[in-house]
Amino acid sequence: MPDRISIGRLALVGVGLIGSSFALALRRAGAVGTVVGSDRSREHLDNALALGIIDQSAESAQEAVRDADLVFVAVPVCSICDVVGQVSAGLKTGSIVTDGGSVKAGITETCSRLMPAGSSFIGGHPIAGTEHSGPAAAFASLFDSRRCILTPLPDADPAAVTTVTRLWQAAGARVSCMEPHHHDRIFAEISHLPHMAAYALVHAVGTADVEGENVLSYTAGGFRDFTRIASSDPAMWRDIAIMNRPSLLKSIDGFSGSLADLRQRIEQEDGPGLEAFFTIAKQFRDGIA
Amino acid sequence: MPDRISIGRLALVGVGLIGSSFALALRRAGAVGTVVGSDRSREHLDNALALGIIDQSAESAQEAVRDADLVFVAVPVCSICDVVGQVSAGLKTGSIVTDGGSVKAGITETCSRLMPAGSSFIGGHPIAGTEHSGPAAAFASLFDSRRCILTPLPDADPAAVTTVTRLWQAAGARVSCMEPHHHDRIFAEISHLPHMAAYALVHAVGTADVEGENVLSYTAGGFRDFTRIASSDPAMWRDIAIMNRPSLLKSIDGFSGSLADLRQRIEQEDGPGLEAFFTIAKQFRDGIA
Repeated sequence: MPDRISIGRLALVGVGLIGSSFALALRRAGAVGTVVGSDRSREHLDNALALGIIDQSAESAQEAVRDADLVFVAVPVCSICDVVGQVSAGLKTGSIVTDGGSVKAGITETCSRLMPAGSSFIGGHPIAGTEHSGPAAAFASLFDSRRCILTPLPDADPAAVTTVTRLWQAAGARVSCMEPHHHDRIFAEISHLPHMAAYALVHAVGTADVEGENVLSYTAGGFRDFTRIASSDPAMWRDIAIMNRPSLLKSIDGFSGSLADLRQRIEQEDGPGLEAFFTIAKQFRDGIA
Repeated sequence: MPDRISIGRLALVGVGLIGSSFALALRRAGAVGTVVGSDRSREHLDNALALGIIDQSAESAQEAVRDADLVFVAVPVCSICDVVGQVSAGLKTGSIVTDGGSVKAGITETCSRLMPAGSSFIGGHPIAGTEHSGPAAAFASLFDSRRCILTPLPDADPAAVTTVTRLWQAAGARVSCMEPHHHDRIFAEISHLPHMAAYALVHAVGTADVEGENVLSYTAGGFRDFTRIASSDPAMWRDIAIMNRPSLLKSIDGFSGSLADLRQRIEQEDGPGLEAFFTIAKQFRDGIA
């Protein structure tokens, strides 16, 4: 049984839902000493302080990371590399930087290169969230039994990987490691592609011209469930789509191919072919239920 | 206030979830005298009798419709025309035939032509269902506050339209009338297309080759919600896809166009264009929430 994991000083760059929930989860586990936070939003920062999520608020990311043992960069995915570039010169020797971005290849490579000697970047992706945002929506059990995928480069310090692994485990998550490009291909398929499909579907149905009628007024529960993810934050998905562009284009092409295959079976009134197509899909779907 | 609607003798051709629930809903409303049922499944027929859903079981559809005031054809969508063709010669003068199929143009035209003088066919589509099937899954409130769309031809007997409308209202539904092709275009968009998209997506993701790994093992709640409808009955969706082929092909083409538009914006790293696309879709989606 290893000693209980604990770090002295945690810097949260970004005190939104993910960053704040990580701090609360570590507090619950007794795994953190002092938490200092920074955020571009003064209101979020004040709330995080008032709610006891952070012990100290910093005026900048640079100030927040000073003397920190672990830096958790929990900002929008397209800003992570910028933030790490801004703070890297001020990192304490021996410190570890990790993030919570849902795209990993570019971030892991860029941020790993930005590390000064003696500091490590270990990319991470906790698979958790709610439809809410900000520190007031944070809670300590957000990551309980959820996956967190770490994407260390092959030359990453094994001790740093172990520390980040044990911290996420202390936060309740099930941790696994994955090569960053592999991560991006998998999440292009199971997360980014479904979002693109939902957005495109709602766009198509919303603009469909059926004798001038608003087709959406006829939608029922099934359509609502199917398209719920098209209510997600457009700016966040803009960033994810651009950052995971190569993998996502592959996934979209695979989906377009499947859709074209299905379209052809419908056009040819290929009953057995349609039933086979639907049955294979149903088996895949039932296999994950 | 009109007199309370009531019919003497209802024939259910098909005592599955929809047919049996319709009978129970009319019983609850005191709107039906005797219910006679037929079904290709002996087990379903016995269950419907044992559960008091029907008062009498018939050996065939022809036997069931004898002396019936209303015939409800609640069989798979591709069998409706066949059933109506088998029973039309034995219909009582003044009787009305209706159905519960989710595709309406072909059925309404064919079945209306099959009616003998003095009988009317009024096509219907109750927008209700559960993931279960058979008479043992039926319940009286299935249609409460759900839409039921009737698709009478322009020359349909207005009195027959009124009777079917008032029976569905007695069963709890909100009834509206629609031209059958218009119905099929609308449901191609809001129901049939989403099912095709879900099947194609699960098919694509399930067969995606990401270094030989089973991508589906990483799916979380979002993917499961989005793809739930890909667990629907393959044989039913085979029939719907073929029967609503012209409208569905149009809908698929509209969706493919939206997807191609989105793909291009991703490929070109068009941040403002992506955000605009997602924002429009989100507004459509939030508008129906």
